Amino acid sequence: MSETKIYLSEKEIPTNWYNIMADMPNLPKPPLNPQTMQPAGPPDLTPIFPMDLIMQEVTQERWIVIPDEVRELYKLWRPAPLVRAYRLEKVLDTPAKIFYKYEGASPAGSHKLNTAIPQAYYNKQAGIKRLATETGAGQWGSALAMACKFFGLECIVYMVKISYQQKPYRRSLMQIFDAEVIASPSDRTNAGRQILAKSPDSLGSLGMAISEAVEDAAGREDTNYALGSVLNHVMLHQTIIGQEAKAQMEKADAYPDIVIGCCGGGSNFSGLGFPFVYDNLTKGKKVRLIAVEPEACPTLTRGAFAYDFGDVAGMTPLLSMYTLGTEFMPAGIHAGGLRYHGDSPLVSQLLHDGLIEAKAVNQIGIFESALTFARSEGIIPAPESAHAIKGTIDEALACKESGEAKTILFGLSGHGHFDMTAYENYLSGQIQDFSLPQEALDNALKSLPKV
Amino acid sequence: MSETKIYLSEKEIPTNWYNIMADMPNLPKPPLNPQTMQPAGPPDLTPIFPMDLIMQEVTQERWIVIPDEVRELYKLWRPAPLVRAYRLEKVLDTPAKIFYKYEGASPAGSHKLNTAIPQAYYNKQAGIKRLATETGAGQWGSALAMACKFFGLECIVYMVKISYQQKPYRRSLMQIFDAEVIASPSDRTNAGRQILAKSPDSLGSLGMAISEAVEDAAGREDTNYALGSVLNHVMLHQTIIGQEAKAQMEKADAYPDIVIGCCGGGSNFSGLGFPFVYDNLTKGKKVRLIAVEPEACPTLTRGAFAYDFGDVAGMTPLLSMYTLGTEFMPAGIHAGGLRYHGDSPLVSQLLHDGLIEAKAVNQIGIFESALTFARSEGIIPAPESAHAIKGTIDEALACKESGEAKTILFGLSGHGHFDMTAYENYLSGQIQDFSLPQEALDNALKSLPKV
Repeated sequence: MSETKIYLSEKEIPTNWYNIMADMPNLPKPPLNPQTMQPAGPPDLTPIFPMDLIMQEVTQERWIVIPDEVRELYKLWRPAPLVRAYRLEKVLDTPAKIFYKYEGASPAGSHKLNTAIPQAYYNKQAGIKRLATETGAGQWGSALAMACKFFGLECIVYMVKISYQQKPYRRSLMQIFDAEVIASPSDRTNAGRQILAKSPDSLGSLGMAISEAVEDAAGREDTNYALGSVLNHVMLHQTIIGQEAKAQMEKADAYPDIVIGCCGGGSNFSGLGFPFVYDNLTKGKKVRLIAVEPEACPTLTRGAFAYDFGDVAGMTPLLSMYTLGTEFMPAGIHAGGLRYHGDSPLVSQLLHDGLIEAKAVNQIGIFESALTFARSEGIIPAPESAHAIKGTIDEALACKESGEAKTILFGLSGHGHFDMTAYENYLSGQIQDFSLPQEALDNALKSLPKV
Repeated sequence: MSETKIYLSEKEIPTNWYNIMADMPNLPKPPLNPQTMQPAGPPDLTPIFPMDLIMQEVTQERWIVIPDEVRELYKLWRPAPLVRAYRLEKVLDTPAKIFYKYEGASPAGSHKLNTAIPQAYYNKQAGIKRLATETGAGQWGSALAMACKFFGLECIVYMVKISYQQKPYRRSLMQIFDAEVIASPSDRTNAGRQILAKSPDSLGSLGMAISEAVEDAAGREDTNYALGSVLNHVMLHQTIIGQEAKAQMEKADAYPDIVIGCCGGGSNFSGLGFPFVYDNLTKGKKVRLIAVEPEACPTLTRGAFAYDFGDVAGMTPLLSMYTLGTEFMPAGIHAGGLRYHGDSPLVSQLLHDGLIEAKAVNQIGIFESALTFARSEGIIPAPESAHAIKGTIDEALACKESGEAKTILFGLSGHGHFDMTAYENYLSGQIQDFSLPQEALDNALKSLPKV
C-alpha cells in the first residue's frame, strides 16, 4: 500500500501559475465599463487594482512567474497534502480510488490564502497602503487579513451582516490579524447608506458588500480593492493547487479520470481543475471535470449565460458569465461561500463550450456526505467543500454499481472549524432541502442589464 | 535555507513507544488503593482498564511495540510536521533557532489523538463496547470520540458544565463522531448527584467529571474508563511526538539545547520531552527541558510533592505527584486543559529529581505570545499551547540578550479554532493576570489525604 498522504518538498512548489486563457478555444467576452457599456480596458481598472494584477487579468501568456516573496510565504503550508482516502473508499465499498487535495491545512483554513498573498504582494509593490474587501462566510476575509498582516498593509473587510452576527469567531480571527471588520450594509459608504435607507434591517449580501468595498477603494488614493474569486487573476493564482496535485498523483502512480470541485465564484474548482483542462486541451487527456454547486444557488446549472454586474449597486464592470441576476437572493444555506449570483467568466465559458460539467446538489445530502467523510477520514469539512465530497461519493457509488475502478480526485477546499453552527443545525434536524421554483429564477433574471 | 517544514514519510512513523520508566533513576512511588491505602496492583485496575493498558502502566520495558492497526490510523495525520519558525525568529530578532512540532494538524486538532487511538484499540481488543471519559476544554473528549468511532465503540463524555455551556462547538464536534455528551455534574451518577445535592449550581471541574466517568465505567461490565493525561500509559503513547521530532531535527541537521512544552496533566510535555530525557540519561546529552504551566494553576512550581487522589470523590487510586489538592479551584483561565490540580507522576518524579525544570506564566503574556506567533507563523494556537510559545519567546529573547544562538524546540500541541472566545476576550481587554495568594494554596493543600 502506498503512502496515505503524498507530500512534495518545498522545492517542488510550482514556480509558475498556469493561465488557461493561453489554451481555451474561446475566450470569455471582454468585461464592459458599466457607464459606457464599452469593453473595459486596463485604465478602467486602475482606480482599484494594481497594474500587475490588471495585466494578469488580461494576458494570454501561458505561464506567469510566481514572485520569490510569494513562494517564500507559500512555504508556511505548501505544498498542500494530497491524501488517498483509503478509509472512505472502504466505507463506501467502492472499487474507485479516491484522492483529495487538502487546502484546509493553510493557516487561514482554506485555499483562499493562495491568492490573498500575491494580491497583497502586488499591491504592496505598487505602493498601496490599505486593501478593502468583502467577505461572506469569512474564509476570504480571514485570508486577506492574514496576507495584509504579512506585508504590513491595513485591511478593511465589509462582512455580510448576517455572517457578522452569526460568526463572531470568524470576526475575531480577522481581528487577530488586525483587520477592521465592518458589518455590511454600513453607513461608511454611499452604497451602504442607500441600501439602509431602503431596508434598515437588511442582513446584507455578497453583492452589497462588494459595492461597499469597491466604493471604499475607489474613493481613496492609498486603498485598492481585492476580490477572492470570480476574476481571472484569482483563478490564475489558484492553479498552484492543481499543478501540485498532478505532481503528487504522479508520485502515487495515478492519474484522475474525474476531477471534482465545489463551485461558487469558481476559485477552488479552477485552481484544482484548470491544470487538468490543460491536459485535455493540449495532451489528448480526457479527464471529466465536475463543478458542484448548491441547488439553492444554481448559477451554472440554471442561470443565464449573459453579461451581468458583479455587485448589487452596479459599480463593477459587467462580466460575461453564468448568472442568476444581482437581485437573486439565495436561501440561507450554510455554504455562505457558494451564495453568489454569478460565477467566474473562465469557468462559465468552459462550461458553455462543453469542456467541463456542472451539477447541483441539495443540503441534506451535503451534510450526510460531510459526516461520512468526517467519520472515515477524520476531517470536518467546510460546508462548501462538502459539495465536492457529495459529488465524489455519487461518482464512487456509480463505480460500485458499474464495477469500474475509476480514479477520482476532489478538492477539499477547507476545514469546517468555524462552521460548527451548521453542523449543530444538521445534527438537530434543522437543515432542509430547498426546491427552487422556476418562477423565482425567471423573476431574478429580469434584473439582467440590457447590453 | 533548508525547508521550513520537515516531513518524514509514513514508513518513518516510529514502530515503538518509549517507556521512560526503563531509564529513570527513581521510579514514582506506586499508586495506592483508595480503600486500603496499600499499593494498588493490576487487579485494582481491571474494573476500568483493559489488561494491556494496565501492563503498560507498570512495565519497565524500554520499548513497547505499536500495534499495526494503531500505526495505520496514525497515518491519517502522522508523522506530524516539524516546522522551523523562520518568521518568528525574524520578528523576535533573535539569534536562536526555533523549531516547533505541530500536533494541531491531527484530525482532532491536538496531540490527544495519539493516545485516544491506542486506548480505543486495546479496549476493543479486550471486548469492551463502550468507553466513558471526562473532558474540560474538549480536546480530549473530541479525540476519544473520534477514536471510538474508528473502532466502533460507543463513547460517553462527561463534560465540565461550564465548558459544556461555553463551548457548544466542541460539543457538536464530539456529536459528529456520535459521542454522548453529558454536562457534569449530572444526575447520571452517585458522585454527580451528591455534588448537585450540595451545590445545585455547580459549574463542575475536571476532578468531578473524572469521578462521574470512573463510576460509570466501574458500574458496567461493557464499559471501561479512558483518561487523556496523567497516567503512565498516556505519557508512553505520546512519546511518538518526541521520537519523530528527533528524526526530523536530524534531517535539519539540528539538535535542541532546550525543549519546551505546556504542562497540565503532562501528556504533551512528556510526549515531546521524554525521548530527549532519554538522550540525557543514556547518551550524555544536556538538553534543558522546561514544563510551562499557568500561574493560576501552578501545580509543579508551587504544589506539594505528595500522594493525592486524581478525582474529587476519591474514587481513583492515590498517585504520587505534585498536587494542589483536590479542593483547589483554579480561576477561570482560558487554558482549560491546564486546570488540573495534579500532574503526571512521571513528570513529577523527574522534576523532583532535578531532571527537568518547571516555570509558571501568566495570562496576558500568554495571549501576547499567541498573537506574536499567529501573526508571524499564521497558526492560531490553543491557549494551552500558547504557554509553550511564551516559554519559547522568553528563551529566545534571553538569547538575543546574551548573543547565544541556541536551538529551541517547542511543542505546539494544538490549534485554537475552538477557543476563539478566549481570543475575543483578550482582544476586548477582558483577560487579566492572576496573582494567587499563598494562603489559598495552603488551604487547598489541607485537603491532601493522610497516607
